[in-house]
This record gives sequence, C-alpha cells and structure tokens, in this order.
Amino acid sequence: MARTVEVGSDAPKERHRAVLETAARLICEKGYEAASVQDIADACGLTKAGLYYYIRSKEDLLLEIQNYGMDIFEERVLLPVLSIADPVERLKACMEKNILLVTEGWSKEVTIILHEHETLTGAARAQINARKKRYVHFLESSFEEAMRDGRIRRVEPRVAAFAFLGQVLWIYKWFRPDGKIPADRLTREMQDLFFGGLEILPKGRTAKKPAKAKRASA
Amino acid sequence: MARTVEVGSDAPKERHRAVLETAARLICEKGYEAASVQDIADACGLTKAGLYYYIRSKEDLLLEIQNYGMDIFEERVLLPVLSIADPVERLKACMEKNILLVTEGWSKEVTIILHEHETLTGAARAQINARKKRYVHFLESSFEEAMRDGRIRRVEPRVAAFAFLGQVLWIYKWFRPDGKIPADRLTREMQDLFFGGLEILPKGRTAKKPAKAKRASA
Repeated sequence: MARTVEVGSDAPKERHRAVLETAARLICEKGYEAASVQDIADACGLTKAGLYYYIRSKEDLLLEIQNYGMDIFEERVLLPVLSIADPVERLKACMEKNILLVTEGWSKEVTIILHEHETLTGAARAQINARKKRYVHFLESSFEEAMRDGRIRRVEPRVAAFAFLGQVLWIYKWFRPDGKIPADRLTREMQDLFFGGLEILPKGRTAKKPAKAKRASA
Repeated sequence: MARTVEVGSDAPKERHRAVLETAARLICEKGYEAASVQDIADACGLTKAGLYYYIRSKEDLLLEIQNYGMDIFEERVLLPVLSIADPVERLKACMEKNILLVTEGWSKEVTIILHEHETLTGAARAQINARKKRYVHFLESSFEEAMRDGRIRRVEPRVAAFAFLGQVLWIYKWFRPDGKIPADRLTREMQDLFFGGLEILPKGRTAKKPAKAKRASA
C-alpha cells in the first residue's frame, strides 16, 4: 500500500511517530496552509494513500502532533516527578527534566507546534488546552504545598508557575546544542536562579554552593 | 485613491500603524499564506491599490510588522531605562516596562508575529535578529555590570538574560487583562521572584517587603 517511512524502525508506533515528526518539520517550514497533504506525503517518503494510513485528515494532523507532543512531555517530565514527596525537590526535578526535553532529544518542531500554533479550533483546541492546564495546575499546587510546608517564601502560585514555564519553555527559542552553554550547566544555572531566592533551607542545611554565594555576599 | 483606514486618527503615521496592526491580526488569524493581499486590504477598509500605498509587497509586510514591533519595544522599554545608572535598578525598570508592554496597550498580534513568525528569510530575518540581539546584549551587559559592582551574586549573564526574557515574554501567552492578577501586581511578583535571590542589598538597606520575607522564613 505504501512505501516505507524514512525511519529505521519497523514498529508501527515508531513509524507513526516519524510521520508526525516529519509533518511537524514541514508545517514549521512552509506554514500549515502552504504545506499540502502531498508535500507531507513526499517528505515522509509515502504515497498520499499511504499517508492516510497514518492520519485521518490534514485538520486532524495538527491535533495529533500536539497530542504527541503532550504524550512525550507527560512521559518524560511529569510522570517521573509526581512521586517526589518534597515539593521543592519535585519542582527542581521537573525543571531539570523539562529543560532536558527542550534541549535534547525531542524535535524542536513538535514543541513549536505545541506552543505556537493556534490553528486548532473547537473541541481539538479545548483538548490540548486541558492537557496544558493540568501542567500549570501541577506547578501551582506544588508551589502552594511548598509554601504550606515552609519550604519557600510567599509567592503568588500562578505567577510562579508561569514564570517557571516561561523561563523553561523560552529555551527552545534560543538554545543551540553546539553553543557554549551545555544543557546540564544551563539546568543548574536556571534552578539556582529560580529557587535561589525562593527556597528556605532547613536549619543546619546549607545551599549546595555556599562558597560561591557567600563570596558574593561578603 | 483609497477609502480611509478604519482608525480615528488622520495622521499618515497613525494610519500606517493601523494597517500594520490590522494585517498582524489577520495573519495570526488565518496564517501568512492563507491571508491574501485582498483579505488584508478588506480588513483595513482599503482597496488593494490603497493598501499598496502603505506596503510595498506582502513579503515586505511581515518585515514591516516586525520592525514596527521592535520600534515600539525600543521606544517604550529600552530607551527610557538606558540612562539608569544602577544596573539592578535598570534591569528592574526594564522588566516593569516590558511587562507593561505585553500586558497593556501594544496589540498582542504584533508581539506574536515578532516572536513566533519564522517566515522571514535572508536579509530581512538578519535585520530583525540583529535588533533582537541588541536587547539580549543590553541585558547580558547589565547583569555583568551588576556582578562587577557587587550588586548581585554570580550568575551566567547569558542564562540570566534569557531567563529574564522567557519569564517576561511568555506572559503574552497566558495573561488575560480581565484575569485575577492585575499587571502591576504581576510586575511586583515577577521582579521579586527574579531579583529576590539575586540582589545583594547594601548594608543597612533592607528589601522592600522584609515583613513578608521574614514571616515566611521564621
């Protein structure tokens, strides 16, 4: 029925993913209106009929790409940190995993379509917005919990949540993997910037880099 | 030659601005490819010939919208703070003015096109990128200066600059003027979040809200 998708794996799920990644790349390059189903099929190394094995319609494709982006996000960022008991450690781990997601691995185009494409309407848009809101709610309630536990000073949870998100998600706009700041150093610097003024350390426990902080404040 | 643009002012500059704002709105709504010159003319209340009095070509229009966005940004955010001698006060004022810019006044669509539209290529793209880089450079050198003066603790200036930008620019994605957090409170919360852990206050000077901070840390 179709030529094989240009990806090594034979697993259907992997091939489906490759279609979504390739379509995302093309939509970012040409724009959603200008990228025809034929263009997307060509880029995937499929016939038009072959592409329709993977997608129901062009309209549906954007929704699929965004749901795929949210799946990866939940799998790699949200799920692994949910069980961390301490709210500040949970938020720090969440920041680390989200930074890794936007600096490594995940293709940039899927992120761009997830956060910049407003073409979805009606129920499709509501579905993605509901998934995004769950992340905002998770952040807000973690900040609230951290305040209740006396682990951070007082903040407006909603502002803290979106400041966290903005700091982390803006990274895909400027970060270059071959640049002078590697992802692990970026993570430490951002955790330090964000939580440095927020966290209240338990008595007898000092910050991880006390020498640096003390030298500067001496 | 043309019907009047749908805006109160008769000043040619104001009418030109109204054309750019209207075109930005339409491009965000329909996509750049799908929005035809005729659509844009209709939305402006102009004939096609009338629209060409204001723009040279559709390709040129995106560049004009982005340059217009940068003009407003420089006029309202960058220029008013350049002369502030203290680097931390300069950065705080800059954050305040940038937050006001993305929460009030300036139409959201121009911001979206400035930060999300990658359709520009070649010299046009290089021109806008150079203007954006000047802002990043201004932030980086202000953070460097603040470190040299012992006004903040040690940070990586590039990470601090993009963390600042991300926190501030992400606002246009979630802020609603009729929401529960007004722009002035958002500004204070964000300044506090960002500079709270960074700033080293001169001896004898305390932070603006010591009671709140102390209560939380008690």
